[in-house]
Amino acid sequence: MNANPKFLNTTAHVDEAAVESLPNSRKIYVEGSRADIRVPMREIRQSDTPAAMGVEQNPPIYVYDTSGPYTDAETKIDIRSGLAPLRARWIEERNDTEELAGPSSAYGRERLADPKLATLRFNLHRKPRRARAGMNVTQMHYARQNIITPEMEFIAIRENQRCEGLMALLTKQHRGEHFGAALPRAITPEFVRDEVARGRAIIPNNINHPESEPMIIGRNFLVKINANIGNSALSSGIQEEVEKMTWSTRWGGDTVMDLSTGKHIHETREWIVRNSPVPIGTVPIYQALEKVDGKAEELTWEIYRDTLIEQCEQGVDYFTVHAGVRLPFIPMTAKRMTGIVSRGGSIMAKWCLAHHKESFLYTRFEEICELLKEYDVAFSLGDGLRPGSIYDANDEAQIAELKTLGELTQIAWKHDVQVMIEGPGHVPMQLIKENMELQLKYCHEAPFYTLGPLTTDIAPGYDHITSAIGAAMIGWYGTAMLCYVTPKEHLGLPDKEDVKDGIMAYKIAAHAADLAKGHPGAQIRDNALSKARFEFRWDDQFNLGLDPDKAREFHDETLPQEGAKLAHFCSMCGPHFCSMKITQDVREYAAQQGLAETQALERGMKEKAQEFVEQGAEIYSKI
Amino acid sequence: MNANPKFLNTTAHVDEAAVESLPNSRKIYVEGSRADIRVPMREIRQSDTPAAMGVEQNPPIYVYDTSGPYTDAETKIDIRSGLAPLRARWIEERNDTEELAGPSSAYGRERLADPKLATLRFNLHRKPRRARAGMNVTQMHYARQNIITPEMEFIAIRENQRCEGLMALLTKQHRGEHFGAALPRAITPEFVRDEVARGRAIIPNNINHPESEPMIIGRNFLVKINANIGNSALSSGIQEEVEKMTWSTRWGGDTVMDLSTGKHIHETREWIVRNSPVPIGTVPIYQALEKVDGKAEELTWEIYRDTLIEQCEQGVDYFTVHAGVRLPFIPMTAKRMTGIVSRGGSIMAKWCLAHHKESFLYTRFEEICELLKEYDVAFSLGDGLRPGSIYDANDEAQIAELKTLGELTQIAWKHDVQVMIEGPGHVPMQLIKENMELQLKYCHEAPFYTLGPLTTDIAPGYDHITSAIGAAMIGWYGTAMLCYVTPKEHLGLPDKEDVKDGIMAYKIAAHAADLAKGHPGAQIRDNALSKARFEFRWDDQFNLGLDPDKAREFHDETLPQEGAKLAHFCSMCGPHFCSMKITQDVREYAAQQGLAETQALERGMKEKAQEFVEQGAEIYSKI
Repeated sequence: MNANPKFLNTTAHVDEAAVESLPNSRKIYVEGSRADIRVPMREIRQSDTPAAMGVEQNPPIYVYDTSGPYTDAETKIDIRSGLAPLRARWIEERNDTEELAGPSSAYGRERLADPKLATLRFNLHRKPRRARAGMNVTQMHYARQNIITPEMEFIAIRENQRCEGLMALLTKQHRGEHFGAALPRAITPEFVRDEVARGRAIIPNNINHPESEPMIIGRNFLVKINANIGNSALSSGIQEEVEKMTWSTRWGGDTVMDLSTGKHIHETREWIVRNSPVPIGTVPIYQALEKVDGKAEELTWEIYRDTLIEQCEQGVDYFTVHAGVRLPFIPMTAKRMTGIVSRGGSIMAKWCLAHHKESFLYTRFEEICELLKEYDVAFSLGDGLRPGSIYDANDEAQIAELKTLGELTQIAWKHDVQVMIEGPGHVPMQLIKENMELQLKYCHEAPFYTLGPLTTDIAPGYDHITSAIGAAMIGWYGTAMLCYVTPKEHLGLPDKEDVKDGIMAYKIAAHAADLAKGHPGAQIRDNALSKARFEFRWDDQFNLGLDPDKAREFHDETLPQEGAKLAHFCSMCGPHFCSMKITQDVREYAAQQGLAETQALERGMKEKAQEFVEQGAEIYSKI
Repeated sequence: MNANPKFLNTTAHVDEAAVESLPNSRKIYVEGSRADIRVPMREIRQSDTPAAMGVEQNPPIYVYDTSGPYTDAETKIDIRSGLAPLRARWIEERNDTEELAGPSSAYGRERLADPKLATLRFNLHRKPRRARAGMNVTQMHYARQNIITPEMEFIAIRENQRCEGLMALLTKQHRGEHFGAALPRAITPEFVRDEVARGRAIIPNNINHPESEPMIIGRNFLVKINANIGNSALSSGIQEEVEKMTWSTRWGGDTVMDLSTGKHIHETREWIVRNSPVPIGTVPIYQALEKVDGKAEELTWEIYRDTLIEQCEQGVDYFTVHAGVRLPFIPMTAKRMTGIVSRGGSIMAKWCLAHHKESFLYTRFEEICELLKEYDVAFSLGDGLRPGSIYDANDEAQIAELKTLGELTQIAWKHDVQVMIEGPGHVPMQLIKENMELQLKYCHEAPFYTLGPLTTDIAPGYDHITSAIGAAMIGWYGTAMLCYVTPKEHLGLPDKEDVKDGIMAYKIAAHAADLAKGHPGAQIRDNALSKARFEFRWDDQFNLGLDPDKAREFHDETLPQEGAKLAHFCSMCGPHFCSMKITQDVREYAAQQGLAETQALERGMKEKAQEFVEQGAEIYSKI
């Protein structure tokens, strides 16, 4: 095999393309009840409505911003130092954690002691922290004691997108079905606390990842998306993975999973966590398997446990744990079209068969809970038996595992450990709602976190689209976080362009779901963009979109001249056929004639019609 | 303005990229009850299951093929001659039409007589046909007289995708809700006739377009997609438009709308129709407007009527007619976020206001019916008041127009003229079902033909995705044909790559809808592809997909070696982590041990576990 990982060295630098501000945007911070609660948002400035359409000031639009300090023109970025630990004081103030002398995992100590790794290693001066003996440091634990943490307040502010001017446009009553609990008019810190206490939302933020900006995953909040990155034995290196992380968060990734399986995953992970403004998730069994040279049957609880500690102390915020792959479920997959497609699931299935025992993830589950509550790492209970094809969707194995995940959820909650549940995969449209409803029922409303689902298998190369369809639907029905799928799914590892394509498809799915759920404020950006479109404010239309660069590039392919950005038409129809332009005439006319009152029509103002021809017929001739 | 249309000349040639067969595929024809009913399908050959997984022959898969003779290795293509008129004899046999001396529209005669157009003109030797006096030549008319035409039989064969081998895999009962009428187990010619007679499906095939392969649009058949092509004043020429048509049908466009607005639309259209194996739709008001130099208020019934005749005699198969834009509805759009976004709708709105009269499309509707039944051109009743933003979705203006389209449908049906209804546009997910249900109710189940809908406005540059989400859902709920949206929507005119991207997104949406509706046989291709994927038959996986070229290209970016196509792993996980590979071990083991019987597990075969470790643990070491 061609294994050529490229490594970071002292020339490590931040990816320039990922740190520029987006056009006409700036980072602003909304302050909370204390000065160190500073919630980032992106402000997008708009230009005024042109005179011809009635001058009007268009207010800036504020959007949820996952990109961290990278897009803040006033922050100096040096990935060798990592991001500032913005949550460090909050953690210390709670006075329930202690600083360790160093890593407490055997593997962590070994890596730190290895002089050959010196050039690869992120140079962290801080020591890892852990709960003081007998303490529980999870956000769920605080919530259940009625404590509102700074993290919760931060989130409440973050979830409320502010916009004064356009709120007025949101007069239309939201119609259609609601799924799940009724949405509140505004997100309060109390509401955040209640949802976390109830287990209906999680705040993944390990005390050893104080650099992360608090965020929440739950179906009564904005739908979130996750981007997977990670090298395999065949590709990619540390610098590239860090770049994928900053790139992912630039375009809207709410969390990032590091699925690396190469030789230096420990070191790669450290660089990613230290530089990540969003929670990081991992699948610890991948690394454990590396430690036994890929021999699944040689995995042991001890090796796995040490890996958990290693990663807890690096600052990973949530762990995928495939504890629902139970021995009796494995034969249920034998008649499937595509068997077991989850890597973690198949590793555990192999272990179970080899030992003919229940997996240690299942039998030692309470011990894992004990560990996680010392660092506030959340469970992402893995769906090791998710369907890998339309044919296998919602089958016996999948549902059996789902029920088990529900049982495990209740065990974790007994320990106040936060839990989300992973879901499929491949599901045809008519079975998506059923899947969501079963999850809510069996898993007691713990947040659902799905991979797509893909709604057909026939389009390799386009699975960001086959799955965005399913993702939007399941997001509407109640899924809290959508794991992206890139165009390379099933075919290869995504590069930067694929990562962006995947994120865009999923930002669309998540936002479409927010709209459908009637999340307060979600429609502000749609309305602003539509208004800009209608008023031919081309630059505003680009800048308000998810990808200003691409919108501008597409527009300029046909009409590159800067003047075209002021034109009251576009290349699609040309000046004579522009319906938007014609509508403006109609609207002006209607306003002028009082035609907005339907009664006016009945007055039969023939003379007005004549007047209109005289005034308005040649409006295009000046272009 | 920069108007540089490029024209066809005597060197006109067929686009090479559009005429090669797709990999491992060949065109086959299934014969009907008479030798000249030859229904094209694409046969995709598969390789055998590799020995390691138990040798098995995998049958060829047959898929619906819209690409016409272009992908038939045995047909010589010369776009200067056009395609063979495969339906000519059927039309003649019915003995209800006559050949005209020449075009009967004034404009058609004028263009034919203009010597300057000689180099641009398609050299058609055939004369136009029209119904003999008093005759009605629509497929609906025949259907209502209980006649099964060759077209109907052709369609019945075409809609039944054949596949013997994999049918056996389709044992799983289809679950979930059904929308609309129950689907038949197999499509019969009688069923086609009944659906057409009932108005629930249409067969758009003008007697002057005998080159087209019959197809059907109705919700009890496969969901179809339309691709729009057409130059504007700013771009593109004839050769390019013909290429876009062959390109569209190669990738799966079921119909093509020619929306050209340039100077030579008459000539461009002729070239497109003569070379198109799929029905062609147009919006005649665009050309009528050209004839009055873009001055909407100068449009007259006479000019419009002459345009209809001109296009009827060229062979256009369906016309978008915005007859539902009534004068009283126009003020309802004044308070919209984006007013009127349909070009045709805004033209008619302008006309109505200028004259303060109901539009001639509405007042002369019966006269239009009289004309259309002489050629069997179908109505596509335009939604001139469709919403152009999420904000405007399902509003008063849209619904008022929809009701009017329902009234017009009944008038057309009185004349046995086929009708479909155009729909939006921009609709958030929670309002899509409502929209579909209102259409079925108000329009008496006439087929719905929607543009998307886009489920959010915030992603210019990605509207093929924002709209594929809505398209898949509305297709499931009952829409019969989905009009594609390309990534350039709102920004510019699509080039060839954009056209392909739009088609792919819509093939996915349509197929996802077919699966969800439980169309008989729809899942065969998903199952075949999934099986190929699971068995590491890489080439089969590529070839069974919607876009073999892209799938192969993506795979080869990481593993270009030909040998990698035989590898039992891929670049995503590398050999040690491949879940598919592990599953095969699990499956083999389960089969070997009889573990498929759940009882077996309870026997507690510890010794078997030991055996498995000894036998199977090192399977990867040979790779």
